[in-house]
Amino acid sequence: MSKANMLVLEGLRAYLTARISPARALNLSLEAIDPVIVAAPLEPSLNDKGTAFAGSLFSAAALAGWALLTRWCTARSLDAEVALQSSNARFLAPARADFRAIAREPPAAQWEKLGRMLARSGRGRAAVCVDVRCHEAVVMTLDGVYAVMLAGRAK
Amino acid sequence: MSKANMLVLEGLRAYLTARISPARALNLSLEAIDPVIVAAPLEPSLNDKGTAFAGSLFSAAALAGWALLTRWCTARSLDAEVALQSSNARFLAPARADFRAIAREPPAAQWEKLGRMLARSGRGRAAVCVDVRCHEAVVMTLDGVYAVMLAGRAK
Repeated sequence: MSKANMLVLEGLRAYLTARISPARALNLSLEAIDPVIVAAPLEPSLNDKGTAFAGSLFSAAALAGWALLTRWCTARSLDAEVALQSSNARFLAPARADFRAIAREPPAAQWEKLGRMLARSGRGRAAVCVDVRCHEAVVMTLDGVYAVMLAGRAK
Repeated sequence: MSKANMLVLEGLRAYLTARISPARALNLSLEAIDPVIVAAPLEPSLNDKGTAFAGSLFSAAALAGWALLTRWCTARSLDAEVALQSSNARFLAPARADFRAIAREPPAAQWEKLGRMLARSGRGRAAVCVDVRCHEAVVMTLDGVYAVMLAGRAK
């Protein structure tokens, strides 16, 4: 990993742990930023079936999408707020061990469109797909739409 | 509340706290069962914007749907596993205070259909809508589809 990427990873990881309480409670941590990976141990997320609670799988996936967009803004020196607006989640199989949420890199055209929206109005929207994997199997997929707002433009 | 309902509430509340680790971590608790209400304090769910993290809103809503179906099974003396299969969530406004997830009672026809499916094959599926409210405003809605499996039939 390049030194610049390592700095972004360390910065985002520290921010996430310091500023997002449930990430601490569920022990979610940013493992990589290219691709963006949020790692989660099973134990704090255990449900009554001995598998990971759906809300924890969702939390890891939502954070991965947030981190992907925040990474993109950071790389462009954009001070922006990123918030999940809507989502579609499919729970495909139980997660019986530690799991990882991996954000898929959007096509270049989507990044370009987001850049144009932010330049024009200070606000934009981006779709992010995240796979949650447990022992290589995909146990959950999230299709999320995030709002991105440049600082000072938030409601 | 009737004594029977109170017993179900106390039982489900204790089960949820004892068996679902993230419910403890986020301090989610079952407040009522008719309608089903899951209450959540803001503090353990705080994100970097000083509002509730999307994953925590989702977790409260997912638990409310789970509790609604578990309450229905308990009332029919059915020993069943209830698991979220897919969901559609809309995050409508930031939650800047404690919040509550309230499951909407499904129409009688849906309960009857679930009963028939379980009687026939030991498995069924049910759609549940949950509103998450903060100071009366709806901040998030969840449309969830849950799988219900009678004990001994689970994969």
